[in-house]
Amino acid sequence: MHTKGEMLYEGKAKQIFLTEDPNVVLVRYKDDATAFNAQKRGSFSRKGELNNAITTLIFKYLEGKGVETHLLEKLSDREQLVKKVEIIPLEMVVRNYAAGSMAQRLGVEEGTKSPVTIVDICYKKDELGDPLINDYHVLFLGVATREELDTMYALTLKINSYLQELFEKMNIILVDFKIELGRLSDGTIILADEISPDTCRLWDKDTMKKLDKDRFRRDLGEVTEAYEEIYNRLTAVLENQI
Amino acid sequence: MHTKGEMLYEGKAKQIFLTEDPNVVLVRYKDDATAFNAQKRGSFSRKGELNNAITTLIFKYLEGKGVETHLLEKLSDREQLVKKVEIIPLEMVVRNYAAGSMAQRLGVEEGTKSPVTIVDICYKKDELGDPLINDYHVLFLGVATREELDTMYALTLKINSYLQELFEKMNIILVDFKIELGRLSDGTIILADEISPDTCRLWDKDTMKKLDKDRFRRDLGEVTEAYEEIYNRLTAVLENQI
Ligand SMILES: Nc1ncnc2c1ncn2[C@@H]1O[C@H](COP(=O)(O)OP(=O)(O)O)[C@@H](O)[C@H]1O
Ligand SMILES: Nc1ncnc2c1ncn2[C@@H]1O[C@H](COP(=O)(O)OP(=O)(O)O)[C@@H](O)[C@H]1O
Ligand SMILES: [Mg+2]
Ligand SMILES: [Mg+2]
Repeated sequence: MHTKGEMLYEGKAKQIFLTEDPNVVLVRYKDDATAFNAQKRGSFSRKGELNNAITTLIFKYLEGKGVETHLLEKLSDREQLVKKVEIIPLEMVVRNYAAGSMAQRLGVEEGTKSPVTIVDICYKKDELGDPLINDYHVLFLGVATREELDTMYALTLKINSYLQELFEKMNIILVDFKIELGRLSDGTIILADEISPDTCRLWDKDTMKKLDKDRFRRDLGEVTEAYEEIYNRLTAVLENQI
Repeated sequence: MHTKGEMLYEGKAKQIFLTEDPNVVLVRYKDDATAFNAQKRGSFSRKGELNNAITTLIFKYLEGKGVETHLLEKLSDREQLVKKVEIIPLEMVVRNYAAGSMAQRLGVEEGTKSPVTIVDICYKKDELGDPLINDYHVLFLGVATREELDTMYALTLKINSYLQELFEKMNIILVDFKIELGRLSDGTIILADEISPDTCRLWDKDTMKKLDKDRFRRDLGEVTEAYEEIYNRLTAVLENQI
């Protein structure tokens, strides 16, 4: 049994609590939603529990494929027990189609399929607006070594192919997503944070309906319903596999 | 003899004219200066002739080192004859020290020396503000192939080391610079456009005085004088070599 100790830090979507085990922290998912570098703020009902449930299912799926994640156990509706990592302050963003900031940056239409799998690295720093950076900047900042970057790219691309396989079965286009990676005390780099409709762009294959945080960002309505839809399809597909 | 034909296009700093030879164009350097994606506009005396003279000296120096450039001949104070290329719409930016947009992007102090030579790629598109992009975006846009990119990086780094050597002798720190590369009709990638105080950050080693376009960007005064200083030191160093 792990007991919830003091709060280590609070982010925009989750709180992290210490436990009596220095290698384990407790994640608590909030209903708060932010967008555009926290300029837009809100919250919607059941977001926390849905993202907890979805992340848990996806991380278990990835573990089954041999991807090491921070997940230890889902404790309750809103809480997970995870391995404590030193988060590498880089958002690894995978894009199978152009959308959002990339479509804007390059002046192309949202939904343009990319002939190559795109990996963007953003420097995770709220004050700077999480800017896009490149490998040289990573080395300049000293936040990861060249060897770590190679590992991170390989891991990120592997996760993309497993997620594409999964969402394909759910009749969903995985447009893009971001992950955060972290170091265990021995330096091993593993998948941390979350994978949920907050961190992915997910479009229904038949209707192209957005089933992700863009519903909140762009005031499209039916936000909770979209997250529930993802949870339901995920459950259906993953139960089928057993 | 090449005769000046109709104007092919006009940029912010130069005009390009056709000649009777389809493989040759004439570049005419203007006194116009723009900054911050042309939001700031001005002009200062002798800029055109100084940039023409400086680019000519630098391109000849690089040719001497075995770098193929578009330069054929300096025709007059403001005019050069150059090989016509298909400009690859990517600005290859080399940074030996953090400054300008990179210092802002990463939240670091201007003048921080980088432990690695940084190469940034910006998509040359005024409407988009020449955004920083990465290799994947280049492939997505289809403006260069992976093989061409490899060539472009290698060429850019080679040019950086020759320029560092040159500016070192001029008692100047080469903080950063941008180049434009283009394709000859057989696909060979060569150095085109210009290398001048408009396209470099150049700091005097003893006084740290800026001897480049930042004097215009930041209203520091003595703009023409700075460009003249670069021209004079360049002439002194390159004459010494013969
Ligand atoms: N296994 C972990 N160990 C330590 N910190 C983690 C772990 N997983 C995620 N975090 C961090 O928890 C913090 C809270 O998450 P979140 O609310 O999503 O933050 P943010 O506002 O940065 O998006 C983030 O800084 C995230 O990187
Ligand atoms: N050898 C060349 N052949 C064809 N075009 C060139 C060559 N060298 C430079 N150019 C192009 O000439 C144009 C005019 O230059 P400039 O005034 O600096 O333009 P910009 O406003 O894009 O900075 C630019 O589009 C530049 O890429
Ligand atoms: Mg987060
Ligand atoms: Mg130019």
